[in-house]
Amino acid sequence: MKPFLPVWKQRHNCVKMTDRTEAMSPLELYESLMAQGDKVRALKTAKADKTEIDAAVQLLLKLKVDYKQVTGQDYKAGSPPSESSVVHDNGPAADGADDEDTVDPWNVSTTNAKGVDYDKLIVRFGSSKIDKELVDRIEKVAGQKPHRFLRRGIFFSHRDMHQVLDAYEKNKSFYLYTGRGPSSEAMHVGHLIPFIFTKWLQDVFDIPLVIQMTDDEKYLWKDLTLEDCHRFAVENAKDIIACGFDVNKTFIFSDLDYMGSSREFYTNVVKIQKHVTFNQVKGIFGFTDSDCIGKISFPAIQAAPSFSNSFPQIFGGRKDIPCLIPCAIDQDPYFRMTRDVAPRIGYPKPALLHSTFFPALQGAQTKMSASDPNSSIFLTDTPKQIKNKVNKHAFSGGKDTVDEHRKYGGNPDVDVSFMYLTFFLEDDEQLEKIRQDYTSGALLTGELKKLLIETLQPMIAEHQERRKQVTDEMVKQFMTPRPLNFNC
Amino acid sequence: MKPFLPVWKQRHNCVKMTDRTEAMSPLELYESLMAQGDKVRALKTAKADKTEIDAAVQLLLKLKVDYKQVTGQDYKAGSPPSESSVVHDNGPAADGADDEDTVDPWNVSTTNAKGVDYDKLIVRFGSSKIDKELVDRIEKVAGQKPHRFLRRGIFFSHRDMHQVLDAYEKNKSFYLYTGRGPSSEAMHVGHLIPFIFTKWLQDVFDIPLVIQMTDDEKYLWKDLTLEDCHRFAVENAKDIIACGFDVNKTFIFSDLDYMGSSREFYTNVVKIQKHVTFNQVKGIFGFTDSDCIGKISFPAIQAAPSFSNSFPQIFGGRKDIPCLIPCAIDQDPYFRMTRDVAPRIGYPKPALLHSTFFPALQGAQTKMSASDPNSSIFLTDTPKQIKNKVNKHAFSGGKDTVDEHRKYGGNPDVDVSFMYLTFFLEDDEQLEKIRQDYTSGALLTGELKKLLIETLQPMIAEHQERRKQVTDEMVKQFMTPRPLNFNC
Repeated sequence: MKPFLPVWKQRHNCVKMTDRTEAMSPLELYESLMAQGDKVRALKTAKADKTEIDAAVQLLLKLKVDYKQVTGQDYKAGSPPSESSVVHDNGPAADGADDEDTVDPWNVSTTNAKGVDYDKLIVRFGSSKIDKELVDRIEKVAGQKPHRFLRRGIFFSHRDMHQVLDAYEKNKSFYLYTGRGPSSEAMHVGHLIPFIFTKWLQDVFDIPLVIQMTDDEKYLWKDLTLEDCHRFAVENAKDIIACGFDVNKTFIFSDLDYMGSSREFYTNVVKIQKHVTFNQVKGIFGFTDSDCIGKISFPAIQAAPSFSNSFPQIFGGRKDIPCLIPCAIDQDPYFRMTRDVAPRIGYPKPALLHSTFFPALQGAQTKMSASDPNSSIFLTDTPKQIKNKVNKHAFSGGKDTVDEHRKYGGNPDVDVSFMYLTFFLEDDEQLEKIRQDYTSGALLTGELKKLLIETLQPMIAEHQERRKQVTDEMVKQFMTPRPLNFNC
Repeated sequence: MKPFLPVWKQRHNCVKMTDRTEAMSPLELYESLMAQGDKVRALKTAKADKTEIDAAVQLLLKLKVDYKQVTGQDYKAGSPPSESSVVHDNGPAADGADDEDTVDPWNVSTTNAKGVDYDKLIVRFGSSKIDKELVDRIEKVAGQKPHRFLRRGIFFSHRDMHQVLDAYEKNKSFYLYTGRGPSSEAMHVGHLIPFIFTKWLQDVFDIPLVIQMTDDEKYLWKDLTLEDCHRFAVENAKDIIACGFDVNKTFIFSDLDYMGSSREFYTNVVKIQKHVTFNQVKGIFGFTDSDCIGKISFPAIQAAPSFSNSFPQIFGGRKDIPCLIPCAIDQDPYFRMTRDVAPRIGYPKPALLHSTFFPALQGAQTKMSASDPNSSIFLTDTPKQIKNKVNKHAFSGGKDTVDEHRKYGGNPDVDVSFMYLTFFLEDDEQLEKIRQDYTSGALLTGELKKLLIETLQPMIAEHQERRKQVTDEMVKQFMTPRPLNFNC
């Protein structure tokens, strides 16, 4: 088995223009961009709702891509497109070099249609690449074929994974910690990525798992009531349980519930809060003086489950059980902070495995977002909705006409349907064949979309079936603090 | 009964120099002051331990008072005492006009030997004076002679006390909330002031009381372990229980314990944290970017007990039971913030009754502090220790010689022994006679100190006796969340 890095990062080809802007002249596009830029600035100044700002930024980025495609130039405010501009490059900026990618727990965006530059992110964040050697080692230690997310570089970055494996080889067990911010009842397929992978880790290593539902965080950040946030936490827990976690090895908790029921958890929160200054969270998270004190102190609450004595019911008060956190890379700032604090309060640093983002249907410039229904395939979507959304919204790397496509081939690097298959199609050979056929032009966009639809429809239907089996009683069981199967 | 305002605010007289500096020349004093000023600045720059800074500031203030007394001039850095300076005023600055008094939850200091100017503080804080009308009204509603702390202006300021009484007259009950920061095992007599008064309020109004032990706060602010802070909370609870609170009407809680056992309490903390920005706590408490995020968010934890639904076991989930907070005025910033937040989260504002500070033995420039043993009469002191401390350290308003004292009289306004009698001697007529005799010179300093010693010794001995009766079982009972006698 050879590690198989994300195929959409391997080549560069031209991009099909998207619907709304394809009839615009370069000057019309330029004016739309100017207006959209003003709108984004006005929304930010007015501290508008994040969803609204995100949507406006997403449109801005899309316009920039289209502009480059039409004019062959990068958009610059104050420089209208020149008369002589010709389409000399159908693709967007190849490496996103003009704009630094934005990646933090609340914003993910890039101008690059291939998505965030993850190699640059590893350098910026100071983490380590998951290379072939590490994937091989996980295979050896776990005694299992690595999960496709590892084989395909979807989990691409780590911190201290070798130490975790060193200890595990010496029969020193560890535990898993991941989480979810329950901002609505609706979860989309992208939300499942960390849970699908975490379930695999739980199975192959046979270890306990704690899952934090940050209902307090969502209350602090969003215009939602505490009651709604907690209700979303419980509803989302059902989707998480439907991923197949073992109730004897899994504790799911709402912060609002667990903080008010665990002295040990609050004790760790206070310890962390004593050892992190406002200057530090300002630097890490970009908080300002206008942010509420709840946001400012929240990072300690996401940090606390990294320490095993936050769960005395599971680890009997031991503070030295190593923790491994599988999460999307945008959550890393929380754990950089946690790792900085850990030795100062006498705890081991948590290790991490970072995933890429799950792209929006409209393209890899942003991640899939539940607040934009057209960007997302929801776990509640019907087969028909899935089909329509993929056919209508999934950004295509194909050509405008069948003839052109057959002649020049499509670009899987920017094709969202192909990206999604990379996440969900288990068969490596079949995936590689699809890539080759699409690139050569043998496979048409409609055919590629059909393959994705046929992959997603049964996957979502099965998830819905499993979720139906999740009773309130089961949720209660998962969410009750209790001992888990754990031998250290 | 006529209200009897603090007698030490009525007259101005000369001050006896204190031991250490009385032999110094004006120039020596000036040089000591320069050096001490440098020391304070250096400690502050080095962010030294607060206890150390406080001690240095206290000495600085004392030197300033002595300097003024010796030279008749206010100390000014860079202006050595002039040759012609003569002692034309034996007293310190009469109204503290040169220096604004410092009053916040962590610092209390003034250059005025009579203590903080409380009338100015009422204006600065925007509270209301407890005037004769209010004292009379409390007497009428409670049907009891007002407590000596009310008769003598020791509780001198309030917020919304009339509304509490309005509601009480309409049979709408309220509850009491006060607290203590358990920074050591040692409590001194000054710490008892709010509890003595709160017990009186509990008795005359027959209402529930919650007492918050902010062990988390002390951990965040001091160089102490969480375990020590919690232990101090339990030890201090014994002294508080020894004040005679009714277990059926009183709940004492450690933050570390209660946060980890009450979902409702944490819920209110998060609600408050969402509605207060860093800018606000910076303005109210003087926090800086270098402060830890625990300090920054802590004010929400001191605010939360002001809302009755933080205690569902007592108030059955009702959020509209009015809260009355008796506390020293330095805690008011927390409750100004609380009152600002309350209407925005749908809760009634707490009402307040503010006390003056209990002066240090060395004089009313600072309050009694457990971290300076010589400034304090501890609740564990023996009769002999009490006698020695009063005789040795209690700042005297008397003259240097018996002859002078007989001729010119003493100054009760700055005399710490007299101030203490105002707090603890129940008999108004006896106290007034002591004031007159001391002012006239009929009563000598030694005799005044003897009266204080004879008041304190049995009071402390009785407290020790009652504390001995407090068993661990009783502490546990007081500190267990449970229903209290409450009819609303």
